[in-house]
Amino acid sequence: MRIDLNADLGESFGRWRLGDDEALLQVVTSANVACGFHAGDPATLVRTCAGAAERGVRIGAQVAYRDLAGFGRRFIDVSAEDLYADVLYQIGALDGIARSVGSRVSYVKPHGALYNAVVHHEEQAAAVVRAVAAAGELPLLGLPGSAVLAAASAAGLRAVPEAFADRAYTAKGTLVRRTAPGAVLSDPTEIAQRAARMVSAHEVEAIDGSIVTTTAESICVHGDSPDAVVMATAVRDALADDGVDLAPFIDHG
Amino acid sequence: MRIDLNADLGESFGRWRLGDDEALLQVVTSANVACGFHAGDPATLVRTCAGAAERGVRIGAQVAYRDLAGFGRRFIDVSAEDLYADVLYQIGALDGIARSVGSRVSYVKPHGALYNAVVHHEEQAAAVVRAVAAAGELPLLGLPGSAVLAAASAAGLRAVPEAFADRAYTAKGTLVRRTAPGAVLSDPTEIAQRAARMVSAHEVEAIDGSIVTTTAESICVHGDSPDAVVMATAVRDALADDGVDLAPFIDHG
Amino acid sequence: MRIDLNADLGESFGRWRLGDDEALLQVVTSANVACGFHAGDPATLVRTCAGAAERGVRIGAQVAYRDLAGFGRRFIDVSAEDLYADVLYQIGALDGIARSVGSRVSYVKPHGALYNAVVHHEEQAAAVVRAVAAAGELPLLGLPGSAVLAAASAAGLRAVPEAFADRAYTAKGTLVRRTAPGAVLSDPTEIAQRAARMVSAHEVEAIDGSIVTTTAESICVHGDSPDAVVMATAVRDALADDGVDLAPFIDHG
Amino acid sequence: MRIDLNADLGESFGRWRLGDDEALLQVVTSANVACGFHAGDPATLVRTCAGAAERGVRIGAQVAYRDLAGFGRRFIDVSAEDLYADVLYQIGALDGIARSVGSRVSYVKPHGALYNAVVHHEEQAAAVVRAVAAAGELPLLGLPGSAVLAAASAAGLRAVPEAFADRAYTAKGTLVRRTAPGAVLSDPTEIAQRAARMVSAHEVEAIDGSIVTTTAESICVHGDSPDAVVMATAVRDALADDGVDLAPFIDHG
Repeated sequence: MRIDLNADLGESFGRWRLGDDEALLQVVTSANVACGFHAGDPATLVRTCAGAAERGVRIGAQVAYRDLAGFGRRFIDVSAEDLYADVLYQIGALDGIARSVGSRVSYVKPHGALYNAVVHHEEQAAAVVRAVAAAGELPLLGLPGSAVLAAASAAGLRAVPEAFADRAYTAKGTLVRRTAPGAVLSDPTEIAQRAARMVSAHEVEAIDGSIVTTTAESICVHGDSPDAVVMATAVRDALADDGVDLAPFIDHG
Repeated sequence: MRIDLNADLGESFGRWRLGDDEALLQVVTSANVACGFHAGDPATLVRTCAGAAERGVRIGAQVAYRDLAGFGRRFIDVSAEDLYADVLYQIGALDGIARSVGSRVSYVKPHGALYNAVVHHEEQAAAVVRAVAAAGELPLLGLPGSAVLAAASAAGLRAVPEAFADRAYTAKGTLVRRTAPGAVLSDPTEIAQRAARMVSAHEVEAIDGSIVTTTAESICVHGDSPDAVVMATAVRDALADDGVDLAPFIDHG
Repeated sequence: MRIDLNADLGESFGRWRLGDDEALLQVVTSANVACGFHAGDPATLVRTCAGAAERGVRIGAQVAYRDLAGFGRRFIDVSAEDLYADVLYQIGALDGIARSVGSRVSYVKPHGALYNAVVHHEEQAAAVVRAVAAAGELPLLGLPGSAVLAAASAAGLRAVPEAFADRAYTAKGTLVRRTAPGAVLSDPTEIAQRAARMVSAHEVEAIDGSIVTTTAESICVHGDSPDAVVMATAVRDALADDGVDLAPFIDHG
Repeated sequence: MRIDLNADLGESFGRWRLGDDEALLQVVTSANVACGFHAGDPATLVRTCAGAAERGVRIGAQVAYRDLAGFGRRFIDVSAEDLYADVLYQIGALDGIARSVGSRVSYVKPHGALYNAVVHHEEQAAAVVRAVAAAGELPLLGLPGSAVLAAASAAGLRAVPEAFADRAYTAKGTLVRRTAPGAVLSDPTEIAQRAARMVSAHEVEAIDGSIVTTTAESICVHGDSPDAVVMATAVRDALADDGVDLAPFIDHG
């Protein structure tokens, strides 16, 4: 058995530091690197990509709405034409930096409010998929059952579903809203056990106690909480104890 | 005889339109396309690159300081590390867009205050050259005698000197400061004749009446003045009358 | 009879010019001046406010989402806390500039997508009203029947309804969506006649031919179309012919 | 004897936190609050101003170059016209927020690279002073001997000199460059003793061991180092031990 671990990295901006990229790069196998629109000044991206390349961590373009002030967490009703171009621009910018350190952008993952929007917003989902296709037919990492993964598959792209070890699930297998009580888990041991069960048994206990099937090629561990590294390490160790190999979901040729 | 004609394009931003890209693309052979830091929203860049690709016009990355409010025309004392990353980011962003329309970034030309700074600012010139080298050893278009072209040559890059048909030259062959009287020419006929003489006789009459030798592989025609298209067309026609072929300074393999 | 004429001004940004502020200032009685979030660099605002002050044109703060790339025309799902602070910030910035030229911000008008959102978005409407109240209990200019005007009235602010001479109305008195056929009128004579009828008879012919009652203390003429000045002048002249006095809806004490 | 203690506050931006405003507000008597151009989103400014107002801490406008990516620490060769307007805009924005919480902007202090530039850059110093005068003749806090304080005095503004307890001085009384060895002190006890000596004896030991006279109405303690609060508290306590009263350099009427 093998699974990919992904986390958000490169989310500092100029004077402002966020997350412990160095430590997370020792745990994850895929790094969703910010592309400058919600976070990530170019010098940060160079450092983050260099660190990822050194360790064989795959680089994904964490594309976002143009919204530094909101950290990409606010829905923006951007037109399909603009969103298409914004995504293409971001992937290219990060890919140029990744190539300069001997790697490349291997996949795309929408960030924040865009991630949530393309779960159901057909027009924005289609624009993202068109951009990802135009950028070189990259795999797209997202929520199982989302509009964007469906559109990616329909367009002949590889659609990669992920699961969240630190988020509560409904009985239908969707995520409990972040603001609801119990939506976000914080105990590293519990999170690690959930991750192990997701990978080994393809299931997770929903918030109502029922058991839900999960199909994920990657487990997402969050990078900007204070305990991100502790949590990610607990997940990695629990998976290793179960004999699960950690490996990127994408191979370089 | 042959020469390249270059102009700045893609300098609109969102609601704000600037320059007549459509018309200029019918005249020039190389388009210095903005990369989003001083101008050029991504949707504009998609349109401009698509128009350039359609007509076989080469696409250059017009890299700039991060300064939308100042249109990249204000010197910024940015560190070498940041400038290196900023330039790499911009080239990659434009290249991703250019490739999506079947072309690519074929060369780099610094814009505005960065263009002027790297004439003499050794540290910034070196940072730009390192970025251009890291982005795929692209040719660099700049002012003859500038620090940046010297550094490009020293780094094994192709250094491409350009001349300005609408700017007055000193007896030493440098440009007269833009704010000095007579620094900027506006008569299309005179500008066209100067361009023709630059190409055919490799010389230009300096502001004091002396004759200065010019070596240029490209003639720059400005894109954002109201008469840009008239002027560029006059230059092209005068060159054609002299039997000069207009052709990009760079061939695609 | 008297009426106010308002238009959007100060919407240039750095190198990019938009609208003919000089000419419009000779026509309107109230200027909705951009505040830097969707348009309006500070030097533009100084010039625009100085021109308005000179001519006795009232200055309104045209507050917007933080979105230069989208010109404030894209809905952003900003939190009430952030929107409150963003609006307060913008009013203060413009008021500082207005006072430096001997005037002040006399009213507030939301711009673009924010204008449309607060027609029905109760939470954002409330945030705007709280900010306007905190900024000195200014009058608020908006769409008749909108949530934001209702909230303004409820908060003890002066709610000022406006009408649009160049927009089609439904039989219910709401605006026809901008993208629908016939939604935007362009003939200056027709627009001027509609404006005159709105003011003199308090009515307008809806898109289905029915007659709708209008109550407006101000007529909005758009500032960024090529014919803005022609149109505004036609409206002013038609009103003058009807013996309507043009005067700001707000007096300075 | 009495002295003012000032520190930089409000330098978070959106998702990115910087400094411990809450703790520093319990120590300082004057808060240099960011104005959004180098740091400080509006919601942060509201919180910071509310905290300052609650504690009777004076609010100063920490005006800066427009440079979020560089945190205002990079010289920008901005024109006098633009700088004037940028400073006016920032003061007004912060003043609007300060007034909404019952306080107001009581003084202005340039930030970062602008602070350093206006020590000697006559044109930028004059632009800053013109803006501060236009904004209501506010006191200007700066480096003793700087061009900007001289210009402020000449313009009839109150020029307030400050001293730095954690910076090495040359024998001439200027600051040792930040990058030179020994330029920045880090031992809280030593810093506190230097502050106490500056206030009580109006002198400081220069880096060469000589004794330099200092005249300061305020002591600056830096807000964004990890030990900022420890250091500021040490300074406050040392001054209290010497019987020095901490009080704002400006009284509200």
